[in-house]
Amino acid sequence: MRQQVQPGGASSASCSSTSECFSLSHRPAAECGSETSAASEKHEVRANNPPADLSRMTSIIVFYLLYLLSLCLGLACVVCVCVWSGHWRGGFAWDGSALEFNWHPVLMVTGLVVVYGVGAVVYRIPLTWGQNKLPWKLLHAALMLIALILSIVGLCAVFDYHNINKISNVYSLHSWIGITATAVFAMQWVCGAAGFLLPCSPVTLRKVLKPVHVWLGGIILLLSIAACISGINEKLFFALKGNATGTQPYSSLPPEAVLGNTLGVLIVAFGLVVLKILSNHEWQRPDSRPEGLAYTPLLQEENE
Amino acid sequence: MRQQVQPGGASSASCSSTSECFSLSHRPAAECGSETSAASEKHEVRANNPPADLSRMTSIIVFYLLYLLSLCLGLACVVCVCVWSGHWRGGFAWDGSALEFNWHPVLMVTGLVVVYGVGAVVYRIPLTWGQNKLPWKLLHAALMLIALILSIVGLCAVFDYHNINKISNVYSLHSWIGITATAVFAMQWVCGAAGFLLPCSPVTLRKVLKPVHVWLGGIILLLSIAACISGINEKLFFALKGNATGTQPYSSLPPEAVLGNTLGVLIVAFGLVVLKILSNHEWQRPDSRPEGLAYTPLLQEENE
Repeated sequence: MRQQVQPGGASSASCSSTSECFSLSHRPAAECGSETSAASEKHEVRANNPPADLSRMTSIIVFYLLYLLSLCLGLACVVCVCVWSGHWRGGFAWDGSALEFNWHPVLMVTGLVVVYGVGAVVYRIPLTWGQNKLPWKLLHAALMLIALILSIVGLCAVFDYHNINKISNVYSLHSWIGITATAVFAMQWVCGAAGFLLPCSPVTLRKVLKPVHVWLGGIILLLSIAACISGINEKLFFALKGNATGTQPYSSLPPEAVLGNTLGVLIVAFGLVVLKILSNHEWQRPDSRPEGLAYTPLLQEENE
Repeated sequence: MRQQVQPGGASSASCSSTSECFSLSHRPAAECGSETSAASEKHEVRANNPPADLSRMTSIIVFYLLYLLSLCLGLACVVCVCVWSGHWRGGFAWDGSALEFNWHPVLMVTGLVVVYGVGAVVYRIPLTWGQNKLPWKLLHAALMLIALILSIVGLCAVFDYHNINKISNVYSLHSWIGITATAVFAMQWVCGAAGFLLPCSPVTLRKVLKPVHVWLGGIILLLSIAACISGINEKLFFALKGNATGTQPYSSLPPEAVLGNTLGVLIVAFGLVVLKILSNHEWQRPDSRPEGLAYTPLLQEENE
């Protein structure tokens, strides 16, 4: 449905519900910060509609609170998994020993969950909506590439450790889910880069690809969380056997077990906050640009 | 935003996008099947808008295909977990032995995943939209109560088995996630029944409660899936040790391991299909009833 352009560049779409209708101002970058007559007119219009203004402001505040929460949870996940591998599991190496395996949880949690989640919500930040989309698209692609590389190196660590120690690969349910998540993620990144970054990709293809891209993005995060929870659970049972190695059994909940379980809870919480941000239509970057207020696209069509 | 009533009782909301705008006909039951002049008028309107008709029909077909797929996947999950526990793990009993534990995966997968998922999408079935909502609300509540009871009995089975065999309870990450899912589910059911079924609950409370109820519903399913994946993974490592008991090790992927892993994959697939159905705005039961075409509410306000 075509959007109606409000004075000042803010667009208001006709909506089926207030929750779907929310539209933040997305003026072009060139206009941001300038108090034009049109912008003044918009302020007058807003002054006549205080409930809508209040609703808009509340929504922005809730977004930033959730965004801040996601960053804190993500940071807590990375700290927890580093402390677990670095302190409780003996540290890191790349020599085929258990210390090489220790890279696996750190890189998978950091890459496939935290950096991935942070990269997924880049477009939802309202402050970016008034700006040229291309830099944010490149940031999204770069964060996802970092996440993908970390995940692949994380998989290499466990494959290398298994191969050197004559342990079978890809037999557990954890590995099936984790490998699927990484494979779909790699496919998603390649298709996303080809479909949304290449200047030669047609606009019609982008329109078809976009909902699939968004949908697959959520699925990858769900698979990542399931893989992480099963992996942490499995590792704690393997590591905390209460045997001659001097470890306390998992069932007695020693500090390492509490740390591992807490890491799992933090991962679930981070994933839920990210999925909440992604699923809220109020925080989706508006698709249609107000007519007559064009950006300067660096590629063919950057608004897809 | 207020809906516009179209001839024939079909309502068309003004929308921000075509994907949010989709509105299937939801005539009241009394009118269904009768070819009134208003209905004829609607057909004429539709005849003048073949693309919208085609889009509506395509959406209905896609919904029913996904719904059928969810039912098939749910059935496959139940069959798989029953075969696993009943055949590969020795069957069922309630005597404190491992046979009592076998109820745990069966009841949790059947209750907390399959019956829960089927109950969650009841309102999404387009055929029900033209009918009084109360019977479907009662069906939703009944299915969720069955799911909750199955889950609680499933938890009782594992607690009883642990207590008799002097095994600690609620120490693993799997148990933390699973217990949380069941506790939130129980709270959700009580709040849902009190808020949406009790005639004395005010309409304003229902309006506030509804989005929270829907959001928590999705979270419970995500937690259930994570709990099931970690639980199946853990059980396969426990059961398939390749030791003197004669079992082949999990790492050699014997038939039981393939069955268990397949069960995990089916649970993930079922969950993703259900979440896809729940997240698609085109398949949400329309909130507002066409004016002048009232149902016969049996409770105070059944459209919330």
